[in-house]
Amino acid sequence: MNRITKLFGIEKPIIQAGMIWCSPWQLASAVSNHGGLGVIGAGSMYPDVLEEHVIKCKNATKMPFAVNLPLLYPDIDQHIETVIKHKVPVVITSAGNPKTWTKILKEAGITVVHVVSSAKFALKSESAGVDAVVAEGFEAGGHNGREETTTLTLIQDVTNKVSIPVIAAGGIATGKSMLAAMVLGADAVQIGSRFVASEESSAHLNFKNRVVQSGEGDTSLTLKEMTPVRMIKNEFYGKLQSAYSENASLEHLKELLGRGRAKKGMFEGDLNEGELEIGQVATYINKIQPASVIMDEVILEYHNTRRQLSSKSFDF
Amino acid sequence: MNRITKLFGIEKPIIQAGMIWCSPWQLASAVSNHGGLGVIGAGSMYPDVLEEHVIKCKNATKMPFAVNLPLLYPDIDQHIETVIKHKVPVVITSAGNPKTWTKILKEAGITVVHVVSSAKFALKSESAGVDAVVAEGFEAGGHNGREETTTLTLIQDVTNKVSIPVIAAGGIATGKSMLAAMVLGADAVQIGSRFVASEESSAHLNFKNRVVQSGEGDTSLTLKEMTPVRMIKNEFYGKLQSAYSENASLEHLKELLGRGRAKKGMFEGDLNEGELEIGQVATYINKIQPASVIMDEVILEYHNTRRQLSSKSFDF
Repeated sequence: MNRITKLFGIEKPIIQAGMIWCSPWQLASAVSNHGGLGVIGAGSMYPDVLEEHVIKCKNATKMPFAVNLPLLYPDIDQHIETVIKHKVPVVITSAGNPKTWTKILKEAGITVVHVVSSAKFALKSESAGVDAVVAEGFEAGGHNGREETTTLTLIQDVTNKVSIPVIAAGGIATGKSMLAAMVLGADAVQIGSRFVASEESSAHLNFKNRVVQSGEGDTSLTLKEMTPVRMIKNEFYGKLQSAYSENASLEHLKELLGRGRAKKGMFEGDLNEGELEIGQVATYINKIQPASVIMDEVILEYHNTRRQLSSKSFDF
Repeated sequence: MNRITKLFGIEKPIIQAGMIWCSPWQLASAVSNHGGLGVIGAGSMYPDVLEEHVIKCKNATKMPFAVNLPLLYPDIDQHIETVIKHKVPVVITSAGNPKTWTKILKEAGITVVHVVSSAKFALKSESAGVDAVVAEGFEAGGHNGREETTTLTLIQDVTNKVSIPVIAAGGIATGKSMLAAMVLGADAVQIGSRFVASEESSAHLNFKNRVVQSGEGDTSLTLKEMTPVRMIKNEFYGKLQSAYSENASLEHLKELLGRGRAKKGMFEGDLNEGELEIGQVATYINKIQPASVIMDEVILEYHNTRRQLSSKSFDF
């Protein structure tokens, strides 16, 4: 038991990332039922859809689960209402100011976690009263920080500066990377990309297969003028790069991005024209597996590696 | 003892990076005398200067040491002649094709290591017959890879793919990060930035002080059209960014870079107009210390953290 398993009332310090278009109640409940913290990704859901997922998740698990709420979501008030109404145990907020909603959520008895990509915002989140932070490094898929600080650098810095528990994110897909994050001072890990390729994920099968086939250097952090985002270098990405090489205006980039690119890629499976958000660890993800098997493999490797550390080859 | 301490004949698996303008015989011999592998950085030395440093290093230590040779160095033949003539125990090659010189160096009885930033080039280096690779992630200072793969992602991938020993580089400055790298499968770590701020480093005092004062997000990877390089965001960096925003040609960028920018910044201490190469870990480097104290602190934290891992709070 550690600070995070105690805070959330879970068995294993593995948090499934609340990824847009990929994190339905089926995935969240599977992770929670297997001892981790499952998370419904509300960023791609209309208010009525989120409510449906929360109700179904509660019916599918008696264990704690969470909802991820990007605070810049246009109907955020309705999402907040839903999580309070249905007494969702944990809310993970991101992409916005933690001061705005933390107090209201906590008064409703909800545990609040905020996602940050710098020690500066980890400190601000702590001041805003959150119970824990997710610190996410440069290698993570999807939205990312401007400082480009990697998980290896970020976790040590954040854990040195804040007193609340820290969940490491970005680059975590295996038991070795989980143990490395704990060595750096994290209390838990958040796993995203590997759960995109889980059986319970709502990612389109084309996207899951594309993740499984990904190799070294297949992702890139782009759109840095807006919100930096890590995605697979497909045709749509190529169009963005051409626009950059022609010194395109911000307006032109926004027009090119348009609406629904992420849905088109990740949910509808258009591998050419869609936006395919995934982390650098896609390199190691070689099969689509049930969420429970992913967790078992991670935990087994974590313990095997931890055991090996006591051998003489680590004495100097 | 492990594969790297055995290969090099050293006591502790800590390699000091052979950084241009910062890695003279004084630093290399101090690290070697304290049980690590000290490295003379030949990339910023004329052939006669390198020979002087090699001779002085041999006089200052009876322990193994290395020379870092960037293979694209214009007078590389003369550098190769020097390391063979003086029987330098280990040569760490970088920035070039390991096929060209590995055989010649090995026939002279020299242990050869090549620096890579991808699993692809780690495999090519292994085929070229090198004895080990340094795998360096995106967070490292100075020259870097195009794939932007972070140390956390890279080390697992490289150690899964090659059979030869792997030295992790980029983001390593503390005992925790050393242990994290070993957990990921590395046999040793290479520490650069922290040794820049060592007493024995030949970095200008202005540069050492600038490193000590650095905070989060103070470095950036730029010049991606030429050789990507991580540097401090100073006035010179600002000029590069202005040129980018005006869609400057490669010729214009080269002109702006000019000659001797790295020397001006790191060796002559011009913090505004010089190029200041340093890693993201500059954030944690808070004082200038003797190389031996740096190594003692790293090793102490490594063992303390390793010991803590057996506590119940890591059982799940």
